[in-house]
Amino acid sequence: MISNKKIGTNNGGEGLHEECGVFGIYGSPDATNITYYGLHALQHRGQEGCGIVSAEGDRLQYIKGPGLVNGVFNEENIQTLKGSIAIGQVLYTTAGGGGVENIQPIVFRHSTGDFAISYNGNIVNSRRLKKYLESKGSLFLTTSDCEIIANLIKKDVNHQGPQDRIHAIMDALNMVEGAFAFLIMTSKRIYACRDKHGLKPLSLGRMEDGSWVVASETCAFEVVGAEFVRDVEPGEIVTIDHHGIRSNHFSAFKHHKMCSMEYIYFARPDSDIDGCNVHAFRKESGRLLYREAPADADIVIGVPDSSLSAAIGYAEESGIPYEMGLVKSKYVARTFIQPSQSMREKGVRMKLSAVSSIVKGKRVVMVDDSIVRGTTSARIVRLLKEAGATEVHVRIASPPMRHPCFYGVDTSTYEELISANYNLEQVREKIEATSLAFLSAESLMKAGRRQELCMACFDGNYPTDLYQTDEEESLYKRYKIKVK
Amino acid sequence: MISNKKIGTNNGGEGLHEECGVFGIYGSPDATNITYYGLHALQHRGQEGCGIVSAEGDRLQYIKGPGLVNGVFNEENIQTLKGSIAIGQVLYTTAGGGGVENIQPIVFRHSTGDFAISYNGNIVNSRRLKKYLESKGSLFLTTSDCEIIANLIKKDVNHQGPQDRIHAIMDALNMVEGAFAFLIMTSKRIYACRDKHGLKPLSLGRMEDGSWVVASETCAFEVVGAEFVRDVEPGEIVTIDHHGIRSNHFSAFKHHKMCSMEYIYFARPDSDIDGCNVHAFRKESGRLLYREAPADADIVIGVPDSSLSAAIGYAEESGIPYEMGLVKSKYVARTFIQPSQSMREKGVRMKLSAVSSIVKGKRVVMVDDSIVRGTTSARIVRLLKEAGATEVHVRIASPPMRHPCFYGVDTSTYEELISANYNLEQVREKIEATSLAFLSAESLMKAGRRQELCMACFDGNYPTDLYQTDEEESLYKRYKIKVK
Amino acid sequence: MISNKKIGTNNGGEGLHEECGVFGIYGSPDATNITYYGLHALQHRGQEGCGIVSAEGDRLQYIKGPGLVNGVFNEENIQTLKGSIAIGQVLYTTAGGGGVENIQPIVFRHSTGDFAISYNGNIVNSRRLKKYLESKGSLFLTTSDCEIIANLIKKDVNHQGPQDRIHAIMDALNMVEGAFAFLIMTSKRIYACRDKHGLKPLSLGRMEDGSWVVASETCAFEVVGAEFVRDVEPGEIVTIDHHGIRSNHFSAFKHHKMCSMEYIYFARPDSDIDGCNVHAFRKESGRLLYREAPADADIVIGVPDSSLSAAIGYAEESGIPYEMGLVKSKYVARTFIQPSQSMREKGVRMKLSAVSSIVKGKRVVMVDDSIVRGTTSARIVRLLKEAGATEVHVRIASPPMRHPCFYGVDTSTYEELISANYNLEQVREKIEATSLAFLSAESLMKAGRRQELCMACFDGNYPTDLYQTDEEESLYKRYKIKVK
Amino acid sequence: MISNKKIGTNNGGEGLHEECGVFGIYGSPDATNITYYGLHALQHRGQEGCGIVSAEGDRLQYIKGPGLVNGVFNEENIQTLKGSIAIGQVLYTTAGGGGVENIQPIVFRHSTGDFAISYNGNIVNSRRLKKYLESKGSLFLTTSDCEIIANLIKKDVNHQGPQDRIHAIMDALNMVEGAFAFLIMTSKRIYACRDKHGLKPLSLGRMEDGSWVVASETCAFEVVGAEFVRDVEPGEIVTIDHHGIRSNHFSAFKHHKMCSMEYIYFARPDSDIDGCNVHAFRKESGRLLYREAPADADIVIGVPDSSLSAAIGYAEESGIPYEMGLVKSKYVARTFIQPSQSMREKGVRMKLSAVSSIVKGKRVVMVDDSIVRGTTSARIVRLLKEAGATEVHVRIASPPMRHPCFYGVDTSTYEELISANYNLEQVREKIEATSLAFLSAESLMKAGRRQELCMACFDGNYPTDLYQTDEEESLYKRYKIKVK
Repeated sequence: MISNKKIGTNNGGEGLHEECGVFGIYGSPDATNITYYGLHALQHRGQEGCGIVSAEGDRLQYIKGPGLVNGVFNEENIQTLKGSIAIGQVLYTTAGGGGVENIQPIVFRHSTGDFAISYNGNIVNSRRLKKYLESKGSLFLTTSDCEIIANLIKKDVNHQGPQDRIHAIMDALNMVEGAFAFLIMTSKRIYACRDKHGLKPLSLGRMEDGSWVVASETCAFEVVGAEFVRDVEPGEIVTIDHHGIRSNHFSAFKHHKMCSMEYIYFARPDSDIDGCNVHAFRKESGRLLYREAPADADIVIGVPDSSLSAAIGYAEESGIPYEMGLVKSKYVARTFIQPSQSMREKGVRMKLSAVSSIVKGKRVVMVDDSIVRGTTSARIVRLLKEAGATEVHVRIASPPMRHPCFYGVDTSTYEELISANYNLEQVREKIEATSLAFLSAESLMKAGRRQELCMACFDGNYPTDLYQTDEEESLYKRYKIKVK
Repeated sequence: MISNKKIGTNNGGEGLHEECGVFGIYGSPDATNITYYGLHALQHRGQEGCGIVSAEGDRLQYIKGPGLVNGVFNEENIQTLKGSIAIGQVLYTTAGGGGVENIQPIVFRHSTGDFAISYNGNIVNSRRLKKYLESKGSLFLTTSDCEIIANLIKKDVNHQGPQDRIHAIMDALNMVEGAFAFLIMTSKRIYACRDKHGLKPLSLGRMEDGSWVVASETCAFEVVGAEFVRDVEPGEIVTIDHHGIRSNHFSAFKHHKMCSMEYIYFARPDSDIDGCNVHAFRKESGRLLYREAPADADIVIGVPDSSLSAAIGYAEESGIPYEMGLVKSKYVARTFIQPSQSMREKGVRMKLSAVSSIVKGKRVVMVDDSIVRGTTSARIVRLLKEAGATEVHVRIASPPMRHPCFYGVDTSTYEELISANYNLEQVREKIEATSLAFLSAESLMKAGRRQELCMACFDGNYPTDLYQTDEEESLYKRYKIKVK
Repeated sequence: MISNKKIGTNNGGEGLHEECGVFGIYGSPDATNITYYGLHALQHRGQEGCGIVSAEGDRLQYIKGPGLVNGVFNEENIQTLKGSIAIGQVLYTTAGGGGVENIQPIVFRHSTGDFAISYNGNIVNSRRLKKYLESKGSLFLTTSDCEIIANLIKKDVNHQGPQDRIHAIMDALNMVEGAFAFLIMTSKRIYACRDKHGLKPLSLGRMEDGSWVVASETCAFEVVGAEFVRDVEPGEIVTIDHHGIRSNHFSAFKHHKMCSMEYIYFARPDSDIDGCNVHAFRKESGRLLYREAPADADIVIGVPDSSLSAAIGYAEESGIPYEMGLVKSKYVARTFIQPSQSMREKGVRMKLSAVSSIVKGKRVVMVDDSIVRGTTSARIVRLLKEAGATEVHVRIASPPMRHPCFYGVDTSTYEELISANYNLEQVREKIEATSLAFLSAESLMKAGRRQELCMACFDGNYPTDLYQTDEEESLYKRYKIKVK
Repeated sequence: MISNKKIGTNNGGEGLHEECGVFGIYGSPDATNITYYGLHALQHRGQEGCGIVSAEGDRLQYIKGPGLVNGVFNEENIQTLKGSIAIGQVLYTTAGGGGVENIQPIVFRHSTGDFAISYNGNIVNSRRLKKYLESKGSLFLTTSDCEIIANLIKKDVNHQGPQDRIHAIMDALNMVEGAFAFLIMTSKRIYACRDKHGLKPLSLGRMEDGSWVVASETCAFEVVGAEFVRDVEPGEIVTIDHHGIRSNHFSAFKHHKMCSMEYIYFARPDSDIDGCNVHAFRKESGRLLYREAPADADIVIGVPDSSLSAAIGYAEESGIPYEMGLVKSKYVARTFIQPSQSMREKGVRMKLSAVSSIVKGKRVVMVDDSIVRGTTSARIVRLLKEAGATEVHVRIASPPMRHPCFYGVDTSTYEELISANYNLEQVREKIEATSLAFLSAESLMKAGRRQELCMACFDGNYPTDLYQTDEEESLYKRYKIKVK
């Protein structure tokens, strides 16, 4: 059953959400199987839908659907996707919202050959581009950014040959403002494209048999047995075909601004992004956090799963023992029956439970990666106190989040960001912590051993233009968004 | 799970297939529920997929999926489709083939307002139109004729107001060659359109509460409790909105040519098409068949289900008793495990069984509606003989089928049509009948009490142009297709 | 998911329900596949659940579940049931009610070898037997009659050898009062058992390769390509194993009383029961009905599907033309969204619609097989009148139903039987018929060319004892049930 | 669909498996909902099936099925289970094997009232008991130990009153040899029973509203918001009804022998078993392991998830930093497409991946909880070396496993236990570790701060009799099993 009902159950400001992971492979007899395993490694980047497209001769075939990789694919249906080229995606729906028709990759039928797109990111000027395309005769069936890019590429009907094609893509990408890391696939090649700010990760790898792989995160390479080759560069289009790989740069602009939340929260700890391991980044941020904001306590605990590395860093640096004071059920799924309000009042807690025999009578340092709305932090502090913690010192391994993200991170609006509306002491009070400290922006950069992170959600310095309509301009003004 | 794998299991020349049924309703608080029941009444016109679109405010919502109406819809999901306007479709995939993306209605997102199309028929010049549209910047996501029509309507971006809209539709339809009866729905109105030859049925009805309904067959009116008002005329666009109904004719041409196979095979016996009841048509054709081709026999049997009316007509006219010599299981479904070849050789027969105690020792008249490949007829004759029939006189309630259909009836190619390749005696021999006779074209027309049937599959007189490419022209020449 | 929630949606007094069909095969390499096709042919006898057990070596394996044969079984799972012996069942839940654990065949694990039972019928003294067995140490996991019979067979722990086994079965069956036709399967043989009154049908057939089949109805033989051999006799146990077939009679009593409703309503028209074809029976009953109760009318129509044969008989005998004035959707399924009351008032009718263009202005004879509560008849008469029939002469091809059935036919209670509470003229008024007539019991017997039908539901002459508890005795007295 | 096909996919000697978790609640208006959340907290104890039984009046109702709690239950079906008493189970199938009929709780229908049983453990003398029961007239429908216990309880038909009932249970339990912790539920009370050695955990808790809960692990209390009250004692039957709780001891024997593998591997780290927190136990065992077997290395890593606590203990005691060198995908599910052999050779690894950027060039201490076959350890050591580890020092937080378990832990046979067949140096060579050390039995006991662990799998001292047949006796003799 297909519906335009939004497939995701966007749980509001309870947390942060990344929107997508992409994976592609060129030149392997097991292309779709490897894509399946690659998507599985990227599953944390999107659990609302997934799909794989492969090329059998000139024909692009696909299977996609709502839900997890292991729900959509099975031994039988994966075998119907033959061919040596494939791309796939795991999806978290953001701006586009919409139904199953938005699940990617999306296949386009064209007289010059079918093609498919699998996209991670967010186009900032999407409405403007859509209006322009409609004025030229485009008619949209989805609300996905994919369809905008596809129409931009095909807008000039005189482009025909392979050389024209790369120019058509370059032209298109120069019209797109925003964050993206995406794959275009034809029956003969894959184009791997990354925006000129490098806001989203995209890496190239190679299998032992010589086939090329490209993925949002390097953890997918470990899983499929590929060797990391290099990152796709900001503003680069890597073409993969029987000639091997070739590089084109659609923009002379180069200002690397990798999303800092990838390191802090989204990426798997075993991924390396732009040469820096995510677990190592987090552990170092935990060490620095202790140096900036020590606490006199008995035990250090991390909020599972994304804060464990930082908590261990904090524990090692401080010498305070690291303990498993919070346990997260590994069986919680999207389809679980959520406890009703009255159940919750009775104390039913599905996801996270505090371990009384660990925290009772203890002064606890609780390390978390970030605070968005503050509701989750407040809930965990309360859990720990109910379990007997005498003090709860909250330490956040990133700066206060004060600005919304326009590049695909689902951080809602200014109103919802607790640190955009309250000062440190007020936030501490609201979450009922004994003490509260955030990591400084300087230390965050230090943890990454590099300067070029996008920290717009912390400091409001958005690397791209944000206006796409007058209405938006006034919106930004209202919220005093600083634009470069 | 969605895939571009063809959703239908086109069983080749074993029979004939109609492609679609459409249903729409304007102005009812129960719009989607009534559409559900309407589609259920039209289920015989397509079992491969179905969908409903409704309008809640300006927003078009839909649910669709592969399979039967009762598989795709349930109490819960139908309730999510609110609004007082809805259109729906049951689908049999033909030319377009393709996957779930082709299931209709298809919703199009446009800055001037979303709209949806639900289509029955076949566009003869589809490839030509597609090429033209691509040259103007259109990019296709489906292989459905729907998307061609939608792009044709939106091709001129200056059309904006409601008055422009009807002109845009009229312009579009004048570019389309072929058979169609379809619905366009916006958040405010429904347009019901029928091709200028009237090749496909489309009727208007009204509920007691004043809401308008439109359906491929009148049997849907009986089921939902609506009164038949009139047929949509060939070349007419009926606009249904809060003003009531208005009529526009996009073509001055008028030459009514209703598909004769609708009467002979497709339509439900309780439908009236262009004023003539289908059961009555069939029974009369059976009576005329006896007069043209009497048989000296003990019992008359019909091949269930579509030939029962003709068989009863034959029995009544002849005075030979009508018996239930063939029984069709009512539980055979698409998903059944088909008997293997070795099973079949052992005599396993899922769908149809001959009743020994009825036919044993009898001279049987077996009435069927048509012969396509001849394989089914041969199988049934053999069944009857194995069950003990001493003679099997085959009587067909339509003329020999000698030409393929280009208007949505899935009659394959010349090679597959037994009567295009063999004479009467040869066909009789091949199906091992004791005697064989077809109804004459004259009697068929007489049964319908009218002259204006499309009989192209019998006589090759196609009412429309057929050439859309040079390649096709040579194809037609090769097969000596007579074109008007 | 399994639950003890009643799997059926017993729709009360709207109609009659048969409870089961059984099928077994001994000695075929395709045992489970053939059982699948056999069950498919018997699907009309029960749509609430089904199952197949096969023997691979000494091990009995099974697959079963709620729903239709084509929902429970598929290419994959049927292949996991290997072996050359199999039995299966289609289930309509009656007395036992209960959940999926009651779906048959039920497999029993015993140190002397596993066995399985597939049962059609109803044990009248079940509670008495259950109490007796519990007092001997039995503990029940289901509410199925199967488990009672299994415990009866195994109650004497000293029975060990094959000779003992047949005696154990004979002993058990002599304790059981009621109607039954069932199969016991071990890893080496099948026992086919029929109650001493022969209330339920059970027939033996043979495949071309020599394997034996046994089925509730002979239509299953046509479907699987088997030849009818003979009926299992009342009071007989047929043992099928590598020696061929052997016969034992567990009772000297012989008084053949086949359920008349099998002919009138339940059985497929292409089945022969105890040597009489069901369609022929029905057509003859229609002829006799005309002779007993002629009507001056324009057309004869039958209520689909079970009354069509009788209607054709009535039409042929009277010379009044038979028309398709009522059409039943062949796509109505158990899972359909039922029209709400308000929908029904608007005229939404899912299952049955009257064809206005056939019945308008006509005097109609409406032939039906039986009247239970009268509500269905009243609804159809109203349908026909709304469609324009000027007169509706109702002719019922069986006598008035005045007594409940205790042998597996779901006819509720005396209160619900319209003819138990009202006289002919009152019933006519209630169903708003122009005239009403029932077939006489004499003619019914004549139609069957035999005297030995159980007509308890018409005349209250129950062939078995009915008392199993004092409570029941008073119940019967209250309703003045005549007991032999 | 139900089948007797084994529902589990027992993955052989790759690891250890616990068989079940039980949960019960008495006296809550939300009994089934709370049971659902309780089972969810116990999901790690069994993922092959689950079920809940509740009492509505005298009627026991149930829902059960294969798979996880969130697959079997949903908002709708859980609401159909009403009542204030409920028990539930998560299942890992062991000895009984078998199909869905073995999923617990199992409901028994008896004239003195229905009852249900939910069982964790293994009956050592099951075959002996079954033979005895069959000789008294019992007939089995499942291969579950539950049905044996139920029949034992009901074997004496003269037991009738509530007082008799507790005696019947006590009698039954005195016949059962083995490990068990189970719940019996009637429409009025719950009996919580634990074997006289206390081999399986079972704890009592209480909700704020006064309702009683009982669970295999205390982590379920945290999740449902209940307070821990006390453990059920070895040899105790706790009766919970409207009088509150009462205690009966069915055996004077008392020798506490809690399964050590519960602490080492099975239980959730946030559970307290017999007063000792599992995480704390494991962390302490890691500390002791370092003291017994230090290693000169750069980083400590744990094998996720069960070894993380021990690894952190090892790291803290040693001062060597703890790193996330192995990452386990949290999305791996039972239904995943497993990589083929050729895929695996290419390096595809679904579950566990080693993080090159963490381990490259490092001397690694790899802490694991236990070694069964050795194949997993060898695989992980290889993974780490391929990722660049220069040395891999394997440290196991339990003694070498040299004897099979007969109490529900799925440790196969002597042949499969690597430490039963090879000495320390040989094992080290086989798993290709740089060095290898196991924790001593003394330290293990010390970690638990108690003496009374069952360590039969390490030392062969089985607390119960093991002989149930002569055949088994010879088996044990062959393997030189030491029996008390």
